Amino acid sequence: MSDGKTVTAALLIIGNEILSGRTHDKNIPHIAGRLNEAGIRLREVRVVPDVEAEVVQAVNRLRSKYTYLFTTGGIGPTHDDITAECVAKAFGRDLIRHPEANRRLVAHYERTGMEYNEMRQRMANTPEGAGLIDNPVSTAPGFVVENVYVMAGVPRIMQAMLDNVIPTLTGGPKMLSRTVIAELGEGVIAGGLQAIQKRFPDIDIGSYPAYTNEGFRTSLVLRGTDSETLDLAADDVRTLIVSLGGSPQDGDAT
Amino acid sequence: MSDGKTVTAALLIIGNEILSGRTHDKNIPHIAGRLNEAGIRLREVRVVPDVEAEVVQAVNRLRSKYTYLFTTGGIGPTHDDITAECVAKAFGRDLIRHPEANRRLVAHYERTGMEYNEMRQRMANTPEGAGLIDNPVSTAPGFVVENVYVMAGVPRIMQAMLDNVIPTLTGGPKMLSRTVIAELGEGVIAGGLQAIQKRFPDIDIGSYPAYTNEGFRTSLVLRGTDSETLDLAADDVRTLIVSLGGSPQDGDAT
Repeated sequence: MSDGKTVTAALLIIGNEILSGRTHDKNIPHIAGRLNEAGIRLREVRVVPDVEAEVVQAVNRLRSKYTYLFTTGGIGPTHDDITAECVAKAFGRDLIRHPEANRRLVAHYERTGMEYNEMRQRMANTPEGAGLIDNPVSTAPGFVVENVYVMAGVPRIMQAMLDNVIPTLTGGPKMLSRTVIAELGEGVIAGGLQAIQKRFPDIDIGSYPAYTNEGFRTSLVLRGTDSETLDLAADDVRTLIVSLGGSPQDGDAT
Repeated sequence: MSDGKTVTAALLIIGNEILSGRTHDKNIPHIAGRLNEAGIRLREVRVVPDVEAEVVQAVNRLRSKYTYLFTTGGIGPTHDDITAECVAKAFGRDLIRHPEANRRLVAHYERTGMEYNEMRQRMANTPEGAGLIDNPVSTAPGFVVENVYVMAGVPRIMQAMLDNVIPTLTGGPKMLSRTVIAELGEGVIAGGLQAIQKRFPDIDIGSYPAYTNEGFRTSLVLRGTDSETLDLAADDVRTLIVSLGGSPQDGDAT
């Protein structure tokens, strides 16, 4: 479905806490949804530990493969916050004390009466030439270098940063979807669904089974950029379900 | 902290539904926790779409880099279930109708009175030479090829499969943890924490801030394989918090 206009993105989650199972990621679905609304397809997610070589390698691989790369995590004041250093290394740029980031943090700590100590000053460090991503929640900014957007890992802060980033991105055709729910097993629908998929190569049809107390329930999600084609394909799916003795229901568009 | 005995793993999540934001992954924390109990460190997670080249490439990269690779998703009967084909290609093996998997599915569909149709028969396909992973929930088995464990994406089925896999794995030293909570901002603790991290290079100290209505709350998580060293380092963290005017609390070990 690559048509030369498709705009793609990857998400790199930097943090031992996800890999240890301690923290349950909430950022993937939020970022996926916001990017999708903007006509940008999230095509890959990676979670890597706070290990410099791993972060640098992942940044360089993902920024070269996709239109945009977003990172979350590792931009606080503690010793395990190494994202800025890693992104600087990935781009072969010096890590500098960003004057505007520093000005904001000086003002923030003056206002709150807290010490702007050496560790907190690390939050003003960015690769040379980076732009800032505003942080209306806790001041310390994210930053952008070329197509790499570096954001906080705390969901509330990340979401506020993303709100500021989204209007600056160039999206492609927006991915639209239709969801049809069948109270049938996947295996009953699979053959007919494959035939519909073959008739509509520009539509991406996914089948997601659930096991409820009431029995089988399969969500069929159709995704594509053309509304009329989607409606035609969704009609075919409904007809298929009826032909198999089911009663198609419309699900939430997601 | 690589000591030659460390046993590592990666998780490859195969599925457009995570990347579209439709489905919120619940498998990462479960798998991370179970592996950790078994002395296996989850070191990387990737989420890729149902695209053959992407899956094949990720399988080959991750199986060569880590002791174990676990995959979730893409083993059902529908056209978008391509994991078995992809793993066969990654290993350069033929995709075969696995006789024992086929026998189980024949019996299952005889028992339930449903048709064992062509699409459902796809669930008996594995790379040549694969071992089976029992599926007590819905019969269709997962499989293992060398160090690659292929499991379902539906959490209930994946968890049952993992229960069967875990006893067959060889773990290294178990990662233990201590959590100390401080009602202080990260930036206050960061300097002292860095000093403790330097004194205990075999301990991995993470700092996780939260923003509550009551103000700052930072969880300090210490991870390592030696219980006594962990206790010494945790004591130093408590002493640090007291020296900064805080009252350290013990958090859940995670």
